[in-house]
Amino acid sequence: MSLLRQFRRHQLPDMNAYRRFIVAGQHVGWVKPDLARRLLEWPDRFISNDGALALHPRLATAPLRSEAMAETLSALRASGLVPGWRNELYPVNTQFNAPPLLVMERAAVPLFGVLAYGVNLNGFVGRGWGMKVWVARRAATKSVDPNMLDHIVGGGQPIGLTPMENLIKECDEEAGIPAALAGEAVSVGIVTLIFEAVQGLRIDMQFNFDLELPADFTPQNRDGEVAGFELVPVSELIHRLRSEDDFMYDSAIVQVDFLIRHGFIGPEDPDFLSLVAGLRPPLPYDPVQVAA
Amino acid sequence: MSLLRQFRRHQLPDMNAYRRFIVAGQHVGWVKPDLARRLLEWPDRFISNDGALALHPRLATAPLRSEAMAETLSALRASGLVPGWRNELYPVNTQFNAPPLLVMERAAVPLFGVLAYGVNLNGFVGRGWGMKVWVARRAATKSVDPNMLDHIVGGGQPIGLTPMENLIKECDEEAGIPAALAGEAVSVGIVTLIFEAVQGLRIDMQFNFDLELPADFTPQNRDGEVAGFELVPVSELIHRLRSEDDFMYDSAIVQVDFLIRHGFIGPEDPDFLSLVAGLRPPLPYDPVQVAA
Repeated sequence: MSLLRQFRRHQLPDMNAYRRFIVAGQHVGWVKPDLARRLLEWPDRFISNDGALALHPRLATAPLRSEAMAETLSALRASGLVPGWRNELYPVNTQFNAPPLLVMERAAVPLFGVLAYGVNLNGFVGRGWGMKVWVARRAATKSVDPNMLDHIVGGGQPIGLTPMENLIKECDEEAGIPAALAGEAVSVGIVTLIFEAVQGLRIDMQFNFDLELPADFTPQNRDGEVAGFELVPVSELIHRLRSEDDFMYDSAIVQVDFLIRHGFIGPEDPDFLSLVAGLRPPLPYDPVQVAA
Repeated sequence: MSLLRQFRRHQLPDMNAYRRFIVAGQHVGWVKPDLARRLLEWPDRFISNDGALALHPRLATAPLRSEAMAETLSALRASGLVPGWRNELYPVNTQFNAPPLLVMERAAVPLFGVLAYGVNLNGFVGRGWGMKVWVARRAATKSVDPNMLDHIVGGGQPIGLTPMENLIKECDEEAGIPAALAGEAVSVGIVTLIFEAVQGLRIDMQFNFDLELPADFTPQNRDGEVAGFELVPVSELIHRLRSEDDFMYDSAIVQVDFLIRHGFIGPEDPDFLSLVAGLRPPLPYDPVQVAA
């Protein structure tokens, strides 16, 4: 079966079903009309602006905006509207390296359709068709996608760390990969994901890294978020991705990117061009945030 | 200086300056209004259709369309409107692996804004920051970009060969790489290029391959299209791409893709996301030809 199966698990969302979310004149997100109506009950924090929802322009600095957002989310959480609270602050930016326009609780990011960043590690042993790829089975207690297959290491990108620093931290917590080994991981590019999840609208840019692990290395989870690890021959990985939906969605897409970059899926696959195109759909922000 | 320098050598074209080119109801290209007016002087071959230029629907099969196009191009060539004639037929498709709607002389492809496919080889020696990359200096006699730096191997994708077969052929002709060695090249993905060149509107999808070459291998050109080869340390390659425009445009962009996939340019570069986005701008065909 075609690897497009993985992409078809989520259609690209219909952005007409959302209202733009504007901060400091910048289009940074998307909110459902229902949520927009609720937010407009705080007229000192949110205004309606030409069809869009905007953070009130009187909130002119990042600390003021972040405080107003925190108070808002606290109230929404009390109403049960922000499930899976993390106590983790995410930056809202128009560019990855720019100072944030505000920071907000990670669990609310999909409710506001804000771009989130993450890191993934493709950890493998061997080369060519003899390659095996380490995959993780997510713990039954995870709030998102319990029991599903996942990358050996992956995580959201918090404030204050570079992607590489974050990767090294996650390598330690999730798989017991020592910093000296994790530091040999190679940045290999970006995959973009746009999909509607139970948490809301996920718009992600994931920084991906490859790491060839020693044959005698065995990952050890340290944070309780992984039920176990498995070393999967690459041909079996491809077979699973073609026939099953047992990988969590974003991990499956990042696996496809890995398989393409390493030549396991190439021009001989009739869907090759569609697969490649699916790895980086254009970001739905206006004006385009990431342009050459 | 930023590697965005390379992308800025050509702006994305203003598609409003072109008319859509339609074949068999499919949007397959773009023509300048001047050329469209000239083509409409053959009313049995071309018609105006809702602002677009269409191949006449009476041309209902690929052979009929190809013959009408060949006669048209022959006349245009006699008027000096098709420089650089190659005697090489390119397929016009809406999907890479689909049977062509017609075939046409390669030199005319940019005049019709038709999607063209190509292959490139990234040939390198060593790994990590000790890596060196083979580059070619194009012959002074080349019709396109004489004397500029280029990939060790690259070429258009003709009918009747797979990209890998084409790569092996080009490896032999351009760099004397034996088939057994060329066959070890690894497909690594696609770069898309959209730009206005002297030949017209170039819309390319380039299939890229990596090949780690033995340290004692020296390329030997056999078709007279290369003036010489040079083994460039990767740090010097980056410096050149940051400061000079001595690579031909498409080769420069494919080099950026190579540098990103191998971790030489990563999230620590302030332009990383823009560079990644620039490697695959969406194709300007309607409806989108390559969708997941």
